[in-house]
Amino acid sequence: MHKPTALFYQDHALHVLDQSLLPAEMRYLKLTNYLQVISAIKALKVRGAPLIGVAAAYGIAIAAQRRISNFRLALKKAACELQQARPTAVNLRWAVKRLLKIIGDKNVCDYALPARLLSEARLIEQVEKARSFQIGQIGARLIKNNYSRMTICNTGWLAAPGIGTALGVISTAYEQGKKIKVFVLETRPVLQGARLTNFELARTKIPHTLITDSMSGSVMDKIDIVLAGADRIARNGDIANKIGTLTLAITARYYKVPFYVAAPTSSFDLSIKTGKDIIIEERNPDEILKINNRLIAPKNTRAFNPAFDITPARLISGIITEKGIVKPPLIAKTFA
Amino acid sequence: MHKPTALFYQDHALHVLDQSLLPAEMRYLKLTNYLQVISAIKALKVRGAPLIGVAAAYGIAIAAQRRISNFRLALKKAACELQQARPTAVNLRWAVKRLLKIIGDKNVCDYALPARLLSEARLIEQVEKARSFQIGQIGARLIKNNYSRMTICNTGWLAAPGIGTALGVISTAYEQGKKIKVFVLETRPVLQGARLTNFELARTKIPHTLITDSMSGSVMDKIDIVLAGADRIARNGDIANKIGTLTLAITARYYKVPFYVAAPTSSFDLSIKTGKDIIIEERNPDEILKINNRLIAPKNTRAFNPAFDITPARLISGIITEKGIVKPPLIAKTFA
Repeated sequence: MHKPTALFYQDHALHVLDQSLLPAEMRYLKLTNYLQVISAIKALKVRGAPLIGVAAAYGIAIAAQRRISNFRLALKKAACELQQARPTAVNLRWAVKRLLKIIGDKNVCDYALPARLLSEARLIEQVEKARSFQIGQIGARLIKNNYSRMTICNTGWLAAPGIGTALGVISTAYEQGKKIKVFVLETRPVLQGARLTNFELARTKIPHTLITDSMSGSVMDKIDIVLAGADRIARNGDIANKIGTLTLAITARYYKVPFYVAAPTSSFDLSIKTGKDIIIEERNPDEILKINNRLIAPKNTRAFNPAFDITPARLISGIITEKGIVKPPLIAKTFA
Repeated sequence: MHKPTALFYQDHALHVLDQSLLPAEMRYLKLTNYLQVISAIKALKVRGAPLIGVAAAYGIAIAAQRRISNFRLALKKAACELQQARPTAVNLRWAVKRLLKIIGDKNVCDYALPARLLSEARLIEQVEKARSFQIGQIGARLIKNNYSRMTICNTGWLAAPGIGTALGVISTAYEQGKKIKVFVLETRPVLQGARLTNFELARTKIPHTLITDSMSGSVMDKIDIVLAGADRIARNGDIANKIGTLTLAITARYYKVPFYVAAPTSSFDLSIKTGKDIIIEERNPDEILKINNRLIAPKNTRAFNPAFDITPARLISGIITEKGIVKPPLIAKTFA
């Protein structure tokens, strides 16, 4: 493998690059049953809204390889568990739903089911890959030469099949010959910016500088555009994304810097009206309290660890999707 | 010692609680020459704008204990070096200036100088302690019962003689019987919030919750008041404070939450017009890149590490000093 890939399916197993070890170590995990896929998703070994959708789809395909009694019921159970591995990113639900439809299709006989589910998982991966490419093409139009850009979390090929979302926009613009500088927010507590976005950018020649999340205000007057991803987008254009996105969007607004979100249409959840209806995953406080297994606060300190926040539509300049750049009033039309 | 103290002078030495080891370990360093004091200040073993002013004053007093040739010249050199240990907090300059005045006073004979310098250092410590107390009394009037408060960095007894500044306001209000909740921003990169503010609060019964700096936006709608310290305050009311304060102030403004600064008058620098004239210390990028000596980003990643940022006066509801709560147009009058 010349260029690494965040995940691939081979020999009846899903192989995922263990993102919890990056950048120190590049190790692939071989997942041979769906429970391992769930564990890897929960532990952020595989992460990024579009990517966990694909991982879950392969998880169901893997579950279908074991022929047990009550086959379809068992598969529905596996699908349900995979869907609930993490609550916020809607891509997980979107991907699982597509496979559930096949599981529920009486016209597909039990014998054909494993192959059908696997090919559907592969199709989802390809579709998401194509969407990443399109997002890159459309988003790159917003990036002018000599632009400085700020980003949070990781939104490149480690987060989505293909080139990624918000970071894919940057790599596309860069390949078009535009000079770009990137300020990377480290993205506490799990440091996806420091660990993963820098890991991706280090393999390119795009100049990039790591800063702490708290420095966004200090640096914002040098920034031309802020780009983030999204884990779920409500009908009114509110988005859920990595914790810190809201503070970043508020800061961008204060400095009148455009704040764009890049996400495939699989991140939209038209069943909900506003961001208030999005469930925010609360993760183990130890993600904040311990770094490298060492406490950064006194024993028994209480920590609050929401993994996402909701950025209201009014702070978002536009959402870059594979179908074009949409703004809140246009979302319903885009999907009509 | 029943209640720990951030520093004390005893047996011709300055003893400082090594804040770089907290909360894991409580160890006092015995500093017996002024170069050790400079090293401790540079390495953030002793920190907090008012506290490093006091430490520098004792540093000069210690330097005066060695009778060498060109005594006064040597002391002036020591004072100058101490003053330059860190560039942003003006308290350092303020305290050193007071001792320089004595060193330059021809009416004080060489023989009397060491005792005079030591008593001046002790006086500065006592004055700053009294100011902390007053700030607490005045600031506590702003804290109502059942208030939730957010804070950045550390501003308690580890940062200033006596009860501290912004955190002293909280402990005073708490002792007055008011119920308070505190949200503590961890304050990357050096984690003074996580390590030091939680260490102080854990010794009280004030309920407190640790969050990452990026969560300020997510939690702000639950907050009644934001309180921060200051390292230098310009004539127009712009303040320099720990990196992240600006982002926090912008976020507070977006939610219309009052944002107050607590600082003694020794933190004012009336010689400068606006915050633009304040030198921002840029520290070693390794403070961001390494946690517990382990890289969080790929090798050779560039990081930008300003230790402070400038919050403009227009984002500040008021500055709590020992002379009262001042607002930008009143600063000149207060000091007239």
